[in-house]
Amino acid sequence: MTSKGKIKPGYTRSLDFKNGCVEMVHGSGGRAMTQLIDQLFMTAFDNDLLRQMNDQACFQSVAGRMVMSTDSHVITPLFFPGGDIGSLSVHGTINDVVMSGAKPTYLAAGFILEEGFPLSDLKRIVESMAKAAQEAQVPIVTGDTKVVEKGSGDGVFITTTGVGIVPDGINISSNKAQPGDKILVSGTLGDHGIAIMLLRENLSFHCALESDSASLHDLVAKMVATTPNLHVLRDPTRGGVATALNEIARQSDVGMMLYEDKLPILEPVNAACEFLGLDPLYVANEGKLIAICKPEDADQLLATMHTHPLAKNAAIIGEVIEDHHCFVQMETRFGGKRVVDWLSGEQLPRIC
Amino acid sequence: MTSKGKIKPGYTRSLDFKNGCVEMVHGSGGRAMTQLIDQLFMTAFDNDLLRQMNDQACFQSVAGRMVMSTDSHVITPLFFPGGDIGSLSVHGTINDVVMSGAKPTYLAAGFILEEGFPLSDLKRIVESMAKAAQEAQVPIVTGDTKVVEKGSGDGVFITTTGVGIVPDGINISSNKAQPGDKILVSGTLGDHGIAIMLLRENLSFHCALESDSASLHDLVAKMVATTPNLHVLRDPTRGGVATALNEIARQSDVGMMLYEDKLPILEPVNAACEFLGLDPLYVANEGKLIAICKPEDADQLLATMHTHPLAKNAAIIGEVIEDHHCFVQMETRFGGKRVVDWLSGEQLPRIC
Repeated sequence: MTSKGKIKPGYTRSLDFKNGCVEMVHGSGGRAMTQLIDQLFMTAFDNDLLRQMNDQACFQSVAGRMVMSTDSHVITPLFFPGGDIGSLSVHGTINDVVMSGAKPTYLAAGFILEEGFPLSDLKRIVESMAKAAQEAQVPIVTGDTKVVEKGSGDGVFITTTGVGIVPDGINISSNKAQPGDKILVSGTLGDHGIAIMLLRENLSFHCALESDSASLHDLVAKMVATTPNLHVLRDPTRGGVATALNEIARQSDVGMMLYEDKLPILEPVNAACEFLGLDPLYVANEGKLIAICKPEDADQLLATMHTHPLAKNAAIIGEVIEDHHCFVQMETRFGGKRVVDWLSGEQLPRIC
Repeated sequence: MTSKGKIKPGYTRSLDFKNGCVEMVHGSGGRAMTQLIDQLFMTAFDNDLLRQMNDQACFQSVAGRMVMSTDSHVITPLFFPGGDIGSLSVHGTINDVVMSGAKPTYLAAGFILEEGFPLSDLKRIVESMAKAAQEAQVPIVTGDTKVVEKGSGDGVFITTTGVGIVPDGINISSNKAQPGDKILVSGTLGDHGIAIMLLRENLSFHCALESDSASLHDLVAKMVATTPNLHVLRDPTRGGVATALNEIARQSDVGMMLYEDKLPILEPVNAACEFLGLDPLYVANEGKLIAICKPEDADQLLATMHTHPLAKNAAIIGEVIEDHHCFVQMETRFGGKRVVDWLSGEQLPRIC
């Protein structure tokens, strides 16, 4: 769309979304870039704030606490079962915002496009972003597009930044886990990472496996309504649950004890992990959260989570303990204990 | 730094900032990434909000109008006379925020690093960002780091997102230019683009030329204090003054008339443009702004600008006229007129 809905000189040509490609000229700031913005981004993301067409979006804010979070997305392949880089870039940043207990309000998106990238793929990605943003009711209000030469990028990278408003009385932070607290997860672990790995390795198992990529804003809103005194929320993306828990343990200066038999893991994920030599605790999730709360709040919180479609398989998987070494440990199915250490090497590159 | 200032197990090794390189493992979410964050980003950007070490930063907001802007930076080469991608990524986004008249408050930064990129260069860039943010008093409060394989990126791309607060009574927007308004620029045109081009082409002129990369927050604060009724502010980056004015003309549904003899252009920029076949009106600036105001406000606004070190060469370069074609025209030195059209081709790729 053009400003004020009028067609101005030079804006009558349509981009070829069937056979066209991203060209360097689409990043020049000139006519071609304006065409790309008008015919693709403005059309897909259309909302009042974006239609201001300034280099910044202006909106009303309220007094209180706000949060801001940013995530660059470089996942490969760009399209995968259960999503694509577009929906992932919306879900990922919304989830980072809501892990503070906040209601997400606005998103910004920066695109780095590689010369030669098919416009048809870009359109599919942008429309998927738009759909994800619309479903979460978090509009994309401002953005930027850059183009780099063929060989200097990899199709498309998307950096999304989100802001949100924290309700009064909610104080969730990764340094608030206390000995005795219960550790919950909202569902099965490792689905995203394994779905991507199977695609990369061209493997398939009997059971179809999809990324769990999803926006957790609604689940979190229900959780903080039930348990305003939630201590910690964290989405276990890169590095999986093990990494997220080690970070929380370090920040809260506590240890953790997990129970292997309580971990919700889909059978095909377990099978794929065995086959690929991966530990599902270290595999990325994109639509799951870890919650840590007082022991007396845990059952009610779990019951609330079970009523939500994105947390049907939620479970209490462990508890916070005193430990000045800040170790995350696990009681195995056979009654032994092992340390669930920080990930030392590279497990799954470019998983998000 | 580590959380709470304590050294936790596994955090004792130092990164090799002299001879080390970015490795895929620095993007894994595990121990190596935490080391990079602790030893580089946290150290350089250190502030209370960043030290929350959550996946989002939480801050107090005030009731009123906020703005949000994002920019991905892919400039090549990464280091240039007058700046580097680090300082540019701070200046660029602060400038987009302040072109609404806002006071910038916080920045987020997303890094996409290429495997093999020297840690020494990354450190130099991050420290330059930190310095630029500190000088502007706009802290970088949250961030993200991704690593892509060698050949899938180009050293480092940085996406910065800024938020700011618009003072009451200020309503600046690119659709507010009105016939009769005066058009001002804050200084010499094309310095950034030509500095980069001379570097790329390995050319030098008698006179040293530097990028004008600078943060315009202070200049804008003084301008809106003098002229609260400013109509339009815009920083003429990619595509230069010609592109910015064409965008404003389109959004405001007006035409413009520029006066060639009023354009402030440094002699070496003029000479380089002639040599390279470029028009300085289309060349990028990174520390300049266009202001459009009522004719009766223009002289006082110009006087205010002249008192600021970043606008010593400010000038009134033209005026807004009625024109339903939304043409930007220029009266040449010889008394003729020509249309200053949209940039059709690619002039200077990866200039910001």
